[in-house]
Amino acid sequence: MPVNRQIQLDNRPKGEAQASNFVLVSSETPALKDGEVLVRHHFLSLDPYMRGRMNDAKSYAQPQALGQTMGGGTVGEVVESHNPQFPLGTQVVGMGGWQEYGVVNATLPGALRAVDTRHVPLSAYLGAVGMPGVTAYYGLVHIIAPKAGDTLVVSAATGAVGSAFAALSKARACRTVGIAGGPEKCKYAVDELGFDACIDYKLFSDAASLSAAIAAACPKGIDGYFENVGGMVLNAVLPLVNPFGRIAVCGMIAGYNGVPIVLNQPALILMQRLKLEGFIVSEHMEVWPTALAELGGLVASGKLRARESIAQGLENAPEAFLGLLKGKNFGKQLVKLV
Amino acid sequence: MPVNRQIQLDNRPKGEAQASNFVLVSSETPALKDGEVLVRHHFLSLDPYMRGRMNDAKSYAQPQALGQTMGGGTVGEVVESHNPQFPLGTQVVGMGGWQEYGVVNATLPGALRAVDTRHVPLSAYLGAVGMPGVTAYYGLVHIIAPKAGDTLVVSAATGAVGSAFAALSKARACRTVGIAGGPEKCKYAVDELGFDACIDYKLFSDAASLSAAIAAACPKGIDGYFENVGGMVLNAVLPLVNPFGRIAVCGMIAGYNGVPIVLNQPALILMQRLKLEGFIVSEHMEVWPTALAELGGLVASGKLRARESIAQGLENAPEAFLGLLKGKNFGKQLVKLV
Repeated sequence: MPVNRQIQLDNRPKGEAQASNFVLVSSETPALKDGEVLVRHHFLSLDPYMRGRMNDAKSYAQPQALGQTMGGGTVGEVVESHNPQFPLGTQVVGMGGWQEYGVVNATLPGALRAVDTRHVPLSAYLGAVGMPGVTAYYGLVHIIAPKAGDTLVVSAATGAVGSAFAALSKARACRTVGIAGGPEKCKYAVDELGFDACIDYKLFSDAASLSAAIAAACPKGIDGYFENVGGMVLNAVLPLVNPFGRIAVCGMIAGYNGVPIVLNQPALILMQRLKLEGFIVSEHMEVWPTALAELGGLVASGKLRARESIAQGLENAPEAFLGLLKGKNFGKQLVKLV
Repeated sequence: MPVNRQIQLDNRPKGEAQASNFVLVSSETPALKDGEVLVRHHFLSLDPYMRGRMNDAKSYAQPQALGQTMGGGTVGEVVESHNPQFPLGTQVVGMGGWQEYGVVNATLPGALRAVDTRHVPLSAYLGAVGMPGVTAYYGLVHIIAPKAGDTLVVSAATGAVGSAFAALSKARACRTVGIAGGPEKCKYAVDELGFDACIDYKLFSDAASLSAAIAAACPKGIDGYFENVGGMVLNAVLPLVNPFGRIAVCGMIAGYNGVPIVLNQPALILMQRLKLEGFIVSEHMEVWPTALAELGGLVASGKLRARESIAQGLENAPEAFLGLLKGKNFGKQLVKLV
């Protein structure tokens, strides 16, 4: 049996998350039972939602248990199998967590999915053709529901969700404006991801001046907004949203560290007859097949070329995760384990 | 031709609205053209939305023009007719404004509607069986969309919208909790309007203590909230809303005076996957016939006994309106003109 290194949650953050909240442990992988497979993880996905689970607070998911391996999406290869549906060498995506190997009961529906890497690279199943991509799809198609010519805005534009959002939005003939941090990300958004414009929020110290810059890029106002961030960016966007605008609320990263970020002008919800809707993509499994088919096509055809930030080795996962929370990543944050 | 007294908007409020914003003028009613009728107004409706129109600001409706008669709903009787569809003596509801008589081109669709007062009193067509009733219906049926057993909460519970909301909510077997100002209103809400409980927000000076009181009346949490008020009440309710809760945003009266009231915890929209939707009932005319049929039935059968606050005489309309903005009314605020 190979030795399996794992990262567990050792203690909960007080305020900002710290490397000392995590601990690296090693154990033997157990013998397989009938129906189980052993997956060697090639990539681990790091995602902002994980920060919320580190708190012991009311949220959409159970808190991450202390002394247990951190949860998270993984792609890898079956290296031992007691399940004929997943023979040795099968490439799979699952929720293996922050560890080098995972033992999975592959008879459970949805526990493991075999993927085809002929046209789509394995790591993309954690990003553009995985949970982040489907997240963009759900918010765009089922909440914003745009028509051609609408102006759509997304924050964290060069992240995994924002990248997929741009490709899906352009495929629907919408003007697509991103918000990102720094000139390099904004240039990449326009040059590589297909955004019509991208605003660097780091140039602005208050919502009003950021709002003016976004307004200049949205001469017809904003019909749909995909919120990955919250805080100042949301307060800057809200006054620009047209009547009957739709706001898909997917992330509020600005508030995860325990400092609540207020919404400055909730009366706009009434005055402009807006719809705001929060969602978690794992509660809408019915859209995944349709979404993955479109996203896979966009990646295979080169229309969605999402960037990845890749940390090397499990021991570097905590630092990469803390960087993600500060916006240091550029594109989908992964940890390469092989 | 009778002399027609009118109240016009003379100047716009700076901060709180004042009686000095209005001016009373008199004029002759003009001679009727073909298709027109002269309506003697029996009742004028006063509604919170009128405050928003007094500002010259971005909102869902054109601002009320200066030097023009204030707009508003009216019921009355046709006293002169050049339109065979509306003979003398017809009782009608329309948008006659703050004046004693109105000249209406009754050939325009929707300008005037004849009403039947055999089972429903004339004034009710401005309240329970009018715009406020349909407002409650739209928010309840089309945004909150409850199932039997859900817990629903409404602010301004004894107002025209809140009263209708209670009857419609109880008809759908929902636990129905009101929020109102003062012990008299709260007693009335439970004894006469059918609320299961009603919380007096005036007993609490902050959102947290108000929230605790609402929580005690909602042991299963809140599935739907109908927002008539905004401000502290919304901040008190939001943390109690269950996953997938729906919030119909109909009023933000607390912010009309120019002081923006922030939303304290927008991250709850994501964490609890909430839907907030602002609406204006006049943009959903398709629901009016169905809504009015149900509301008329509830009034005729005595299940909806909405209270009215009636000011006497057009000259008292401004003061009654300012009182409404401060919550001094008890039930639907009307001005009796005959």
